Amino acid sequence: MGTPITIALDAMGGDFGPSVVIPAAALSLIRHPETRYIIFGREDEIRAHLSKDSPLAAVSKIVHSEVAIAMDDKPSQALRYGRWKSSMWMALEAVKQGEAQAAVSAGNTGALMAMSKFCLRMLPGIERPAIAALWPTLRSESIVLDVGANVGATAKGLVDNANMGAALARALFQVEKPTIGLLNIGSEEVKGLEEIKRAAAALKAPGLPITYYGFVEGSDLGKGVVDVVVTEGFAGNIALKTAEGTAKQIGAYLKAAMTRSLMSRLGAVLAQGAFKALRAKMDTRTMNGGMFLGLNGVVIKSHGGADAVGFASAIDLGYDMAASGLVADIQRGVESFHNALQAKPEQALKAVAQ
Amino acid sequence: MGTPITIALDAMGGDFGPSVVIPAAALSLIRHPETRYIIFGREDEIRAHLSKDSPLAAVSKIVHSEVAIAMDDKPSQALRYGRWKSSMWMALEAVKQGEAQAAVSAGNTGALMAMSKFCLRMLPGIERPAIAALWPTLRSESIVLDVGANVGATAKGLVDNANMGAALARALFQVEKPTIGLLNIGSEEVKGLEEIKRAAAALKAPGLPITYYGFVEGSDLGKGVVDVVVTEGFAGNIALKTAEGTAKQIGAYLKAAMTRSLMSRLGAVLAQGAFKALRAKMDTRTMNGGMFLGLNGVVIKSHGGADAVGFASAIDLGYDMAASGLVADIQRGVESFHNALQAKPEQALKAVAQ
Repeated sequence: MGTPITIALDAMGGDFGPSVVIPAAALSLIRHPETRYIIFGREDEIRAHLSKDSPLAAVSKIVHSEVAIAMDDKPSQALRYGRWKSSMWMALEAVKQGEAQAAVSAGNTGALMAMSKFCLRMLPGIERPAIAALWPTLRSESIVLDVGANVGATAKGLVDNANMGAALARALFQVEKPTIGLLNIGSEEVKGLEEIKRAAAALKAPGLPITYYGFVEGSDLGKGVVDVVVTEGFAGNIALKTAEGTAKQIGAYLKAAMTRSLMSRLGAVLAQGAFKALRAKMDTRTMNGGMFLGLNGVVIKSHGGADAVGFASAIDLGYDMAASGLVADIQRGVESFHNALQAKPEQALKAVAQ
Repeated sequence: MGTPITIALDAMGGDFGPSVVIPAAALSLIRHPETRYIIFGREDEIRAHLSKDSPLAAVSKIVHSEVAIAMDDKPSQALRYGRWKSSMWMALEAVKQGEAQAAVSAGNTGALMAMSKFCLRMLPGIERPAIAALWPTLRSESIVLDVGANVGATAKGLVDNANMGAALARALFQVEKPTIGLLNIGSEEVKGLEEIKRAAAALKAPGLPITYYGFVEGSDLGKGVVDVVVTEGFAGNIALKTAEGTAKQIGAYLKAAMTRSLMSRLGAVLAQGAFKALRAKMDTRTMNGGMFLGLNGVVIKSHGGADAVGFASAIDLGYDMAASGLVADIQRGVESFHNALQAKPEQALKAVAQ
């Protein structure tokens, strides 16, 4: 028997709204039968989909909202017209009030982040939130953060990301001292890497609940050399999107190659089991869900174009994060990490330079 | 009949030294029979390899050097012991003196960049050099820069990169007004993107010898939506390495999938022509060569682990860049690009925000 968790769903987000969100909730409910849902959005639309699934209807409460946040609104616009009354805001408010333990939305990323900061507030001691992503690797999965919440590396921001990523790895991978790598480029003496070096020095401090691995490069991401890869949001977002794009590009090459001759088409038919396994391996839907970290509560952003399988993965993530007591774990980590950063940074930096 | 070009080769760089550099020069000579070589390094070693290839020997001059730059030296160390007398420095000096029109080395990137700046100097008006890479795309190839010379985006640096990348695209792709995209992340209101927005405003100025496309994301790199993708060196390097890593990761998945059952192995045998075509498509050796831009001369950095096929691609790039008059073209672009940046940036920025 798992932990009973209530999840707040923004039914109006994403490209498909309730027609994806409700079937997704049904899928996740099969995996976590203890889940309860509060579903925010247009009641008639939600009810139409919910009526098809009585086990889901039995554990769900609908809260009507007229206002849906558009996918292309700027965060400031969304806040102006959607505060208090949009389905997105109301899902977050349910987490704030303790009625739900996680909120999941496929809506506009910038709006969801802005509302999350406004509604839930940052954890004390954390200045900037981060978005964490699961990254499929040759070993299993890594966590990569930040993939787009904040631009520009500061040592404190990177150390915060390490702390939050470590707490997430404990929650999702059940490892006590996750291995942490700092994303960096190979060149030794390039200017502008001082903040990364300062963060590295801080992460080497004794007593932290992590195992600091060192620098990792872009080529290490897919190898899975560490549990958590820490970076700032610009490079992290570029890395994530580049990997997705490269996977699609190679998929297109492969398809073209396998259909170019009769022999290759025949080979493809014989190997169709293999290609099915490959597709499953490269199915980004199972990795769907940007995890917002550093807030007073669990918020998951699903890809706007996700189908029910993809959105269900995002709900699963919300369940796991809530059930593990992630927010409290991050909060506990803040102090020790910040002490590490402040403890004689110059001395630590010298040690790194040697 | 092509243009006669003399190329200075650092025979001592990379993991394999003359045993790769000399056969590579022979390969490139077949494609460009007008090439002449000056080969710098240990004379006996070079001569041993050169004696096996009389066409190459006939167009090559050896200049002896005792000093080779180690692959793991810091740039400052390399400069201290290798200035004037290392094979790397001497190859650059040959370009400076006009004896050669391009230098190619597989040595330590940081050392080669530091020595290039010291020996050749920057072009007037350009503050920071960039490293450009060829990026295979679904359409053909794009140029991506900077992939690691400098960290941190400044509007001027990005505009310089656009200018240099455009000149390179004119040289390599024979397009008159190359399309330019600025690498960015999707979020609208993230702080820290001001410099990118300023660069975008400048690149929209009328009369520049480019077609400004707009922002591109990491997922667009493999699609080939523009001729030139402009970014700063940290994100560019992360993108390049992430794409390489993802390609290897998918290659490993594919191999595992194709050998998992008798049927898939049989399918793989039938489709071996297809897989050969796929491997050729994904062969990074043909894209080998980091092009140093912004210097008073053409310098190519080959991957340290490149084989003769890979190093020959780097020589080919050097040939094409030298034959096209690239450096003069970049120089011509500097002034108009800088005027674009300085022309009422506030006004231009407002136009972008609308």
